[in-house]
Amino acid sequence: MSTLSIATAAEVIDLLRDDLAAIELEFAQQSDSPVAVITDIAQYLMAGGGKRIRPLLLLLSAKALGCTTHSRIRLGAVVEMLHTATLVHDDIIDEADTRRGRPSSNTTWGNSKCVLAGDWLYMQSFHHALEERSFKVLDLLISLTQQMVEGELLQMEKLGHLINEEEYFDLIYRKTACLFRVSMQLGAAITHADDEMESNLGEYGRNLGLAFQIVDDVLDLTAAEDVLGKPVASDLREGKATLAVIHALERGTGADREAIRTVLADRSFTRVSHAQILEILHRHGSLAYAMDTACAYAEAARLSLSALPDSDAKRALLWVPGFVTTRDR
Amino acid sequence: MSTLSIATAAEVIDLLRDDLAAIELEFAQQSDSPVAVITDIAQYLMAGGGKRIRPLLLLLSAKALGCTTHSRIRLGAVVEMLHTATLVHDDIIDEADTRRGRPSSNTTWGNSKCVLAGDWLYMQSFHHALEERSFKVLDLLISLTQQMVEGELLQMEKLGHLINEEEYFDLIYRKTACLFRVSMQLGAAITHADDEMESNLGEYGRNLGLAFQIVDDVLDLTAAEDVLGKPVASDLREGKATLAVIHALERGTGADREAIRTVLADRSFTRVSHAQILEILHRHGSLAYAMDTACAYAEAARLSLSALPDSDAKRALLWVPGFVTTRDR
Repeated sequence: MSTLSIATAAEVIDLLRDDLAAIELEFAQQSDSPVAVITDIAQYLMAGGGKRIRPLLLLLSAKALGCTTHSRIRLGAVVEMLHTATLVHDDIIDEADTRRGRPSSNTTWGNSKCVLAGDWLYMQSFHHALEERSFKVLDLLISLTQQMVEGELLQMEKLGHLINEEEYFDLIYRKTACLFRVSMQLGAAITHADDEMESNLGEYGRNLGLAFQIVDDVLDLTAAEDVLGKPVASDLREGKATLAVIHALERGTGADREAIRTVLADRSFTRVSHAQILEILHRHGSLAYAMDTACAYAEAARLSLSALPDSDAKRALLWVPGFVTTRDR
Repeated sequence: MSTLSIATAAEVIDLLRDDLAAIELEFAQQSDSPVAVITDIAQYLMAGGGKRIRPLLLLLSAKALGCTTHSRIRLGAVVEMLHTATLVHDDIIDEADTRRGRPSSNTTWGNSKCVLAGDWLYMQSFHHALEERSFKVLDLLISLTQQMVEGELLQMEKLGHLINEEEYFDLIYRKTACLFRVSMQLGAAITHADDEMESNLGEYGRNLGLAFQIVDDVLDLTAAEDVLGKPVASDLREGKATLAVIHALERGTGADREAIRTVLADRSFTRVSHAQILEILHRHGSLAYAMDTACAYAEAARLSLSALPDSDAKRALLWVPGFVTTRDR
């Protein structure tokens, strides 16, 4: 394990400021389409204040391996664009009204335009990835996208039903951790790192992504709406059982299980209130269990870096898991 | 110009029977997804009896240039799968009830699943195209897909409005001719033909595609519903002005123009009947004009082959334009 101290947020921001600004510019250029509505939707989503965590991971992975080329900027924009494409299509599927506290793209532009704008963003991200002239990069991105899309379909089939932990972890791997993993692997691919290093960095991304999504799912249950920027407990209202809920289902009384089942089946809090569900989760220590699990994955992410040479980028990578597990939105 | 005689339909079918059967098998294997609903949608559409004209063009282009490898089968399935992906998303956008005389995929599976199934089919076609390990092939396919998606968005923005011939030709290029062009170019790419040959074959595809779509649009206006397999005049009912309609708009009396404008704006035949529109089109020779234009593109396609060496595949390519312009559905 590395003996390096962990960086501070300010150090990480300093380290990446120029590269992240270059990625914002590249994204804006890449999303400039001959069809105005595509540019509008892409820029609307880009301005929505995402955390840019995927480009950040790619930058840190590439920098930790000594990357000095434009590839990290180009592919940083590509992973953010790919992520944006999934958001556009997810909003259609979830029939979401809001995204990050603003009207969702489908509410603003309608489903038809969003189907096509999402398609275009996928293609544009592959178009720019193709400029790398690396089959490895393309293999990673195409296979990633298929896994994400399959994950969304699997999730749809499970809506309203009880799932177990194994199914939950498969879903959040596909939904989030897979793109985190590939962002890290792309950093290795453009620096021609060996397979073992690529695999270690990929493991970091996977573990971090699982931690990130578990925390996201806990925040959905517990955070205040004005902090979260979206309605609370939207997962339950969409029929989605997340880790704390699965934990409570496995340990709760018959009445507890029935209450949770009712919310998932109704997809609303009309018969059982949000407060009742929170009381059940607290009583069984389910929220603490989920957070402990997230912290264990965060620690596993840090451990995946043991073979990585010391650098400022490595110190930053050691900082990210703590940031992810202590955020409040 | 070639001195070759033109093949008969029976000869063309004989020439391609084994390859087309291999493509059907390859498509079935490629569309076998770990998520059942994707396989269901892909196989439903594949069984719907498309004309397989895109793989047919790719096969003929590749064979005319001496291709003996599996690449033509793999990419034949890829172009049909890409076409299928566009159909799945188009059905959502058009809110179509039927496709080729059967319920459309969105009617059967719902919009959400069709968004994702379309995404998956796009990714799967790129996944298999990647197996060619040819950047040229990927450049062609990604750029093609972007042009098609932009075309659909441009068409949406023009629905209900009057467009001129230039706009019409841009739309049908993107909708149909672009994929015909790329199917021909892929045959050249996998046989490492020189740029001039690729360009000539691409021109053949483009001209043929324009002819094909013009005829499709005429049939939409004139064919019987039971022959066409979809409601007649669906273009007008969707607010789409096609070549014959544009011709009549430019030459008609004030009353004629007003009648056409009414149907396009209403997107129905409640105030002006389908028979009235057909009378206007006949009176101005607009349907004949559109068919003459299609035949001119068909002849231009044949002329694009003049530098291609003589072969059975070339004879077949000389036959296709006549088939396309004389079909009744």
